[in-house]
Amino acid sequence: MRHVLSVLVEDEPGVLSRVSALFSGRGFNITSLNVAPTLEAQVSHMTITTRGDEQIIEQIIKQLRKLVTVIKVVDITAVTAVERELVLLKVQAGDENRAEILRIVDIFRCKVVDVSVDELSIEVTGTGEKLDALIKLMEKFGVKELVRSGVCALKRSIQADKV
Amino acid sequence: MRHVLSVLVEDEPGVLSRVSALFSGRGFNITSLNVAPTLEAQVSHMTITTRGDEQIIEQIIKQLRKLVTVIKVVDITAVTAVERELVLLKVQAGDENRAEILRIVDIFRCKVVDVSVDELSIEVTGTGEKLDALIKLMEKFGVKELVRSGVCALKRSIQADKV
Repeated sequence: MRHVLSVLVEDEPGVLSRVSALFSGRGFNITSLNVAPTLEAQVSHMTITTRGDEQIIEQIIKQLRKLVTVIKVVDITAVTAVERELVLLKVQAGDENRAEILRIVDIFRCKVVDVSVDELSIEVTGTGEKLDALIKLMEKFGVKELVRSGVCALKRSIQADKV
Repeated sequence: MRHVLSVLVEDEPGVLSRVSALFSGRGFNITSLNVAPTLEAQVSHMTITTRGDEQIIEQIIKQLRKLVTVIKVVDITAVTAVERELVLLKVQAGDENRAEILRIVDIFRCKVVDVSVDELSIEVTGTGEKLDALIKLMEKFGVKELVRSGVCALKRSIQADKV
């Protein structure tokens, strides 16, 4: 099962490598991860998405909580949350395809962030599925570069009952 | 000086902890990092931002290139690039502040992604400076949660001469 973990850590050298070693030590692959500063000095926030056996993920969460540099761990998968991801992609856009690409840009509410004679660079945010769908559409024109931020997740203010 | 590194890696357990250990081994702090899949199976893309001495960063880049699981390293700081970051934030928004917050949401072209009686959750993308400015404005209302994706960067199609 897919899991999204929200982890608050002390911002010091080595914390990222310790956290990621906990996953790799169990042969667990991190699908996406991002880490960036928070409002509090010396505190960073990580969002980690991973797939795997329920029991092993519980073990990993327990081990994470034991690390001195880890302040808080929340399994976002267990709550209702808003998930968003950012994608920047550069697509081949000659005269013959440009109009069609711009139509797709419109439909998916992307922003064009760079342009040249035969390329368009696009910024888009959304859920993983939306972004996968867009990328699939763009692939037929030729995606020359692709950068994904990995999932960012925020707990919803009102928690619906999870079935 | 601030550096943004774009790193293509083989997607296997352990690569993230090896890459981050290269930085922490030198007492180097990673300001932000994100890693996510690319179009190619078994290949992931990382964007790493860090600050530090020019010479040490050159050493780190050299060491990165020596890792078997690292396919390509580009120092984005040396080229003209589009940089974007995603922020999700939950702000305290009672009746007395809601209208003002929504005005700021409009000006910064944010999207409201969740709402309750006294909170608004907002999604916004932009350069680090834009996001810092927005977060600063929101702080006076009370930021209850903040998740940043870290920088994503795409080389511009047309490279301007760097001074």
